[in-house]
Order: sequence, then C-alpha cells, then structure tokens
Amino acid sequence: MRRRGRAQKKRSPGGAHYPWRLPEVPFGPTQLLSEDQSQMLIESALDVLQDTGMRFLEGESRKLLKSAGAQVEEAEQLVRFDRHMVREHLALAPSTFDLRARNPERNLIIGGNRMVFASIGGPAFCSDLDRGRRPGTYQELCDYLRLVQSLDVLHQEGGGPFEPMDLPPESRHLDLYLAQMTLLDKNAQAYPLGRARTLDCLEMTALALGTDRDGLLEQPAVLGIINTNSPRQLDSAMTEAVLELAASGQVCCITPFTLAGSMSPATLAGTLVQQTAEVLAVVTLAQAVRPGAPVMYGHFASNVDMQSGAPALGTPEYAKLALASGQIARALGLPWRSSNTTTSNCVDAQAAYEGQMSLWACMLGHANLVNHAAGWLEGGLTASFEKLIVDAEMLQMMSEVLQPIRLEEDELAAEAIAEVPPGGHHFGTEHTLERFRTAFYPTMLSSRQNFESWTEQGGQDAARRANGIWKRMLADFEPPPIDPAIKEALIDYTQRRKRDIETRH
Amino acid sequence: MRRRGRAQKKRSPGGAHYPWRLPEVPFGPTQLLSEDQSQMLIESALDVLQDTGMRFLEGESRKLLKSAGAQVEEAEQLVRFDRHMVREHLALAPSTFDLRARNPERNLIIGGNRMVFASIGGPAFCSDLDRGRRPGTYQELCDYLRLVQSLDVLHQEGGGPFEPMDLPPESRHLDLYLAQMTLLDKNAQAYPLGRARTLDCLEMTALALGTDRDGLLEQPAVLGIINTNSPRQLDSAMTEAVLELAASGQVCCITPFTLAGSMSPATLAGTLVQQTAEVLAVVTLAQAVRPGAPVMYGHFASNVDMQSGAPALGTPEYAKLALASGQIARALGLPWRSSNTTTSNCVDAQAAYEGQMSLWACMLGHANLVNHAAGWLEGGLTASFEKLIVDAEMLQMMSEVLQPIRLEEDELAAEAIAEVPPGGHHFGTEHTLERFRTAFYPTMLSSRQNFESWTEQGGQDAARRANGIWKRMLADFEPPPIDPAIKEALIDYTQRRKRDIETRH
Repeated sequence: MRRRGRAQKKRSPGGAHYPWRLPEVPFGPTQLLSEDQSQMLIESALDVLQDTGMRFLEGESRKLLKSAGAQVEEAEQLVRFDRHMVREHLALAPSTFDLRARNPERNLIIGGNRMVFASIGGPAFCSDLDRGRRPGTYQELCDYLRLVQSLDVLHQEGGGPFEPMDLPPESRHLDLYLAQMTLLDKNAQAYPLGRARTLDCLEMTALALGTDRDGLLEQPAVLGIINTNSPRQLDSAMTEAVLELAASGQVCCITPFTLAGSMSPATLAGTLVQQTAEVLAVVTLAQAVRPGAPVMYGHFASNVDMQSGAPALGTPEYAKLALASGQIARALGLPWRSSNTTTSNCVDAQAAYEGQMSLWACMLGHANLVNHAAGWLEGGLTASFEKLIVDAEMLQMMSEVLQPIRLEEDELAAEAIAEVPPGGHHFGTEHTLERFRTAFYPTMLSSRQNFESWTEQGGQDAARRANGIWKRMLADFEPPPIDPAIKEALIDYTQRRKRDIETRH
Repeated sequence: MRRRGRAQKKRSPGGAHYPWRLPEVPFGPTQLLSEDQSQMLIESALDVLQDTGMRFLEGESRKLLKSAGAQVEEAEQLVRFDRHMVREHLALAPSTFDLRARNPERNLIIGGNRMVFASIGGPAFCSDLDRGRRPGTYQELCDYLRLVQSLDVLHQEGGGPFEPMDLPPESRHLDLYLAQMTLLDKNAQAYPLGRARTLDCLEMTALALGTDRDGLLEQPAVLGIINTNSPRQLDSAMTEAVLELAASGQVCCITPFTLAGSMSPATLAGTLVQQTAEVLAVVTLAQAVRPGAPVMYGHFASNVDMQSGAPALGTPEYAKLALASGQIARALGLPWRSSNTTTSNCVDAQAAYEGQMSLWACMLGHANLVNHAAGWLEGGLTASFEKLIVDAEMLQMMSEVLQPIRLEEDELAAEAIAEVPPGGHHFGTEHTLERFRTAFYPTMLSSRQNFESWTEQGGQDAARRANGIWKRMLADFEPPPIDPAIKEALIDYTQRRKRDIETRH
C-alpha cells in the first residue's frame, strides 16, 4: 500500500514520504457515557421523531416515508416516525463498507476502528500568506487538489476545497469533478447540492472507474455529505441528493449542523438527542429508498460562544460531543464522521490547539471519517494553503501515535544498555546506527533547530515554513497516471453537460 | 474551592475566573501495552539493575545501598541491585499522598486518576513578544510567579520559571523561595540542587506553613524533581537532595532524561527499560533512607531528531512513551509525572500541536503531575510569558473535557426541541436563556470573531493576544494574604542565610 518508489523519490520535502496507510486505533474507544446513557439518548431521539417529527421540504421523500410507515402532515411538510419503523430501517444499514478509488491501492474501508482523513471541503474563500484571504479561482483550486494528492496522509478529497469563483455556479461542479478525477487517484467526495450535481458525480465516477452505474452499485465509490438544516429540517437540494445516492447504493454521510445554543438546545445532552433524531430520520429515508444503502452518522455538534453567540469550534464541548457521538453511532451500528475544526482566523497556536482538541477526540472516539481533516480555517469559511500543511503534519503525527511500540528482544536493547558506560551516550552504538534513520517519525514541518540557528535562518514560525513546503510540493507535483481514453471521456462529459446547462439558462 | 469573590471580580480577563479544581480523569487510562508487556519491561529493567547496575557518584548513598543489600564496586562507584531487594523497597513507597500548600484550599493530592498541573521550572532564559528572548531578572521572575498565582488552572509552581541572572548563583534559591512563599499561596516545588538548597527549602517551607520539620514529616509539602544523568548515573548534587528529601519524608520525583538515540537506546522499548531501571534504583535509595518516603515515577523520555541528533519533544514517540510510562508506573504502584513539551522557538502552531500531543498523552495516561504544564518553549530553555497564557488556555480546555456530560431530564431538552420549529433557532428559548451564560467553557484566549472584525481590530494571532492578557493580569494582581510574622520570619531566614553564604565565599 506504499506509494510507488519512483514518485516517492522525486517528491520533497517530507510530506510525500509519509506512507499511505489507513490508521487503525489499537485501543478501545473512550467511554464518556455508560451504555445505559447512550441508550437513553437514543431513546430520547426516537421520542423526538415519534412525538415532534422532522420537516422534509421535498415532496417525493414525504411520499416515500409515508409508504414506509411514517405519519405525514402534508400542510406542515412534517413527518413523524414510529420508533419501531426507525429501528427496522436502521437495522438494514451496513456497519462497514468499502469505497473505491481510481487507484485500487487507495480504496477506502469505512467502519470499525479504521480512520479515513479527508481534506477540507466547501469553504467560500482560500488563503495563503502571500496573497491573504480571497475568493479562489479554478487554477488555485487545482493547485490545492495537487497538494491533497501529494500528501499521502490524506485518504480522500473532501468535495472541493473552496468555490472557484471565476467559474459559473451552475456548472462549476463539473470542473471540480474533472479536476478531482484527473489530478488525484484518491477517492473524492461529491458536491451533492441537488439532483443534477449528484447525478453528474455518479456518471463521471463511473467513467473514471471504467465501469457503469451497475458497477457502482456493486462497489460504492461516491460519498456525499448530507447536511440537515437543523433543527429538524431537510431541504430539497439535500433530499434530492439522498434520493439519488441511496438509489445508486452510494454513501449518505448524514450530518446535522447543531450548534448548542442556536441550532440545538444549549445543553450537550439535548444537542446529542437532536443530532441523533435528525440522523435517524434521514437514515430511515435512505433505507426506504434502497434497503442496505450505506449511510454514516455525521457529528458536527459544537456550541456557540457565550459572549457573542458566534460559532465556537474545536472547543472542549466539541470534543465531548464527538466522543459521545461515536458511542451513539456504535450503539446504532453505523460508521461515523467527525471533523478537524477551529474558529481561528490565521494559522496560529489557536488553530493548532483547537485542531488537536478535535483530532484527539476523533481518534479516541474511533471516528471512521475525519472530514475537513486538513486545511480548514475561520470556522470553515476558508481553505488555507498553510493550514493544509500544518494539519497534514498533525495527522502524520497522530497516525504515528497509533503504530504499536515494538517489543522484540533486540528492541529491549539489553546489550546496548550494558555497553554504554554510565553518563555516556548511545549516539555511536551499533544498536543506534542500525536503526537511527528509520527509528522515529521524520518531521515534515516541525523545527528542532536551536534558537540561534533558527533566528539566523529567519526565525520562521510554523505557518511561514508551511508556505515554503506547499510551494516546493507543488513544484514537484506529478499527476497520477490515467488512461487517455478515460480522461477524454471525462472531458467530453463535462463539455456536453456544460452545453446542456448553458442551453437551459 | 473557588477563588474568593472579591479577587475574582477585580481580575480580568477570563483566566482567573476558571475555578480551582484538581482534574480527575473519568475514564480508564489508555492501554498501549498489555499487562504482560508492562511486566516484561519491568523485568528487563530489573535485569539491568541486577546485571549492569547504576553509578552513584556520591559516597554516602553507596554505603546506604550496600547496607540495604546492594552490591557495590567502589572503584567504579557502581551499584548492582538484586531484583528482590528492589521489589521489597518499592513495596514501601506509597501509591498516593497529599502535598500541603500555604492556603489549605490549595492542598494537592498526588495519585490515582487525579492530575496536578505545575508551571514551568528551570529554564535559562525568559521571553516575551516585547523584549524577545533574554536572561531574566528577579523582578521578571516575580512577575512570572504573580501570573502563576493568578491562573487557578495551575495547581503548583514548578521550582522557579527561569534563573534570575541578576542575583548571585550561590544564594538566588533563597530569593526564589521567598518569592514563591509570599507571592503565591499554592504549593511550590523545590530547587533541589545539592544539600544546602534542599535544606533551605525544607526550613523555609516549615516557616511558611507555621510548622517545623516534624510537622513537615507528618504532612509532606515539598516536592523536588530528581534528574538522573542518563544513562545509569546519579550525580552528587541530586543524590544529596534525595537523601535530604527522603529523610524528611518529602517527595522525590525521580525523572531520568532519556532521549532515545542519545541518552538511551534508539528504541522506545529500550528507552522504557532504561528509564524504569534508573527510577527504580533511586526509589530503592529513597526507601533505604526512609521506608515509606513518597516518590514518583518521572517520565521525560523522548527521541532525538533523525536528521540532526537534536532533542525532539512533543513527538508521537513522546506521546507513546508517556502512555507506556503511565502503565509501568501503575504496575509499580507509583504515582507518575510527565510534561507539556515542545521544541518550537516561538509561540506558534508547532508549540501548540506539540504541547497538545504531550498533554493528551498526560491526560489519557492519568499523569498525576504534569510538570512544565505552562510556559515552556525551546525544548525547555526558555520560559515564555505568552506561552504561559496559551498553555493555561489549553489546560483549562483539557480540564473542561474531563467534566462529565450532564444527563438530567431537563438537560435532554425534550420540550425545547419540540418548541423550536423546524429550521428555527434556540437563541431565545427559556431553556437557552436559563443556562446560556454558564453552559459552556468561556474562552480566555481563543478568538471567535469573524474575519472582518478580527482584521479591523488588528488581526492579532493567539500569541499577540496572550501578550495583552498577561499584562492585564499582572496589572490586576493582588498578593494572597500572609501572616506578617511569617513573612518576617521568611525574610529573616533568607537574610541570615545570605550572610552565611557570603562569609563562606
């Protein structure tokens, strides 16, 4: 599963050398709640679905849910779910599944104690230290995707790092898909805003994999993030995506955006109840569309800032909500998703400690998908080129923490310990020389220079060094191989669809 | 246990409002090793002590160990320990103990699942954003101590944040002790370099607590960090401190400085073996001095940088070594110590992510003492005023993660969920208004401003904001009350001892 030797040699510095590897957490998930408490939260969520219900703005979904046994009030577009109906549909969802990538060595496994790290998806802006924060272009988006491809610690592209504002909104998803499928050989998330964009992703993914829609059905390759409009509402665009993804056997990652105190109650327990209710409502819809359709429990619960009412991310509450969400998802039998979040506006200490607060919770809770794992700034409004590098270093370190301590006899080093005299040093021992170069994680970004050398060389902080790293990485980029016929087919598809869209407008 | 209302009102912003609280980890420690594996590492350490031994440079300690049953080679100053002898002495050490503070509300409990956060101790330099990195003065040291007192998330002072270079080295420990005991009412660590400095700490601590050496013996109040000169050596100054602290029933926190690849083998397993051997050798000495003397297993193992051979801290290896050290310490029945470390030269993203890497390992491993929990920069060469604030924020967040999720019925918020319409918001509900101000951790340092407001207000990163916070905190400082007679006795003692020291020189 390591990247090919040739590409590895040509690439520098550091980042691309980190091996492709799906991290597995070797110890059990952190139990913040007792099993009874998880069950109580789930039962409370089922109460909400039964007594209060959820609004589905799209009509077809209400019909589907009605024929599946839900109570629908058409005037209010409100759907109430019997708890047994929810449980029955939930039981159809797989607890683990695979996701194909264009390069089979980069196929993903979603579930169990495995983690997948996805790059940032969705911001309005991009930023770097040279040009600051700005609306991004398609050229810049392609550069960002090249970096995502180069960083082997990132397992999945996150559905477009930012909006390419130089392209028309009706068709820019086609340009995104084309870039995802030619600049990367990793799995890439969909841009599931409405039926057409979702169908385009399904068609182009089938083309990229040299298969058809039936082939996709057998082996899923498309994952879409489905956000509810919390509280208790699913809009039409998202519903259309659920209907198409589920019908095609592709993955709905159902993620309420519940900020305790604004989009959900100002308590962690109430927020967990509401989040779980919303997830279960959409799980039920997906299973009503197609029994066994792969779905995920999405966690994006945090809290508002108490002084200002602004969103607060990477907080202690966020970490606790993530750990509890993991427990609830496991109790439901669903793989789950969390994120690497911060509200910081620059790549500083806050960006890093809020990111770590998020990432440790992901790891300890066995988050199966860490969305926005690298690049996110400003509460998700901006994709930063430097933050991408800082986050990749943090992910590589996290991945390294999960490697077991080796305990073979020569690792215990009894002879080396006896050989070095008291107060001496191990630098030159045979035992050290044999393993020195590969013994420890080789840093990509972190500096171990002493203060004097560091100052002489410009006293660059981590963000400034990251700026140099992504530029070198970009200069060294080699696109992954692609069958020219497939590339042509993808280009043809986007051109044809753009003409359709232009004609319709 | 909250700080007094009056002081609280006068202090701003944020930091001093965080309540005094000894964190308890509500979930079990992370198991990186199986129990068999921990025992194997311990047995390997006992092999080292039995077959290879440890050098004690100080003569009295070798005599003591010989009469306790060890084999001593005087020519090489080498002591070999029978494993049963080590086990018997180890069994005398308490697994948990209390540490008195001048303010009884700030007494500490060391052991079990409780964590104590100590401020930085020992650097050569201090730094802040205004004046850069420099040798510090006594006045600056006193300012640093005022901040340590003001931050209630810090439970113990770490034995002097940096060297006051404007004072003579022979007597500056007396000035440090006076500052610790008058500017703080928290427990403060000793400066245990040699017999005289240790005895001065014991005498002055007894004065500060209004007791005598017998009183100290009943209830320990002094903790000294004892560093071995790894590999396998204890120098005379440290040995004198062990002899005095143990004889007085005070705490030896025995901490080898084992950097894998230089002061210990280039493997994690070998480093754990050597660290454990060194700790057990000094534990045996302390118990030979006084059975039942409180001791701690100190972890300071990390690795060298593979490119340069420089120390690397806050690394993935550091985190794994910390978790494994905790397991070994628990298997030995000893409370244990770790640290919050980084090699960064400035208060940037690296300083934060390496710090978090360290702190999460401390928390997950139930580190009973987190040394250098706040302020450390440059691999421990510098105490930073801004890093103190950044770390305090991280510790407050960590402490908050350990607060359980409340699950009472009104926290589940069924009525609030039903009350807010689909797509509405929870801002104005009674449920939210009732708990809004106290529901979530109120940040001290982190910004939740949007990009525009943040930019308008100067676009300050976390380090720059921390600069403003420590200055306001210092301006608001009120010294804790002290009995004037005790203060006078402490001043008298330092003046008398300084005269003694001057006469002798």
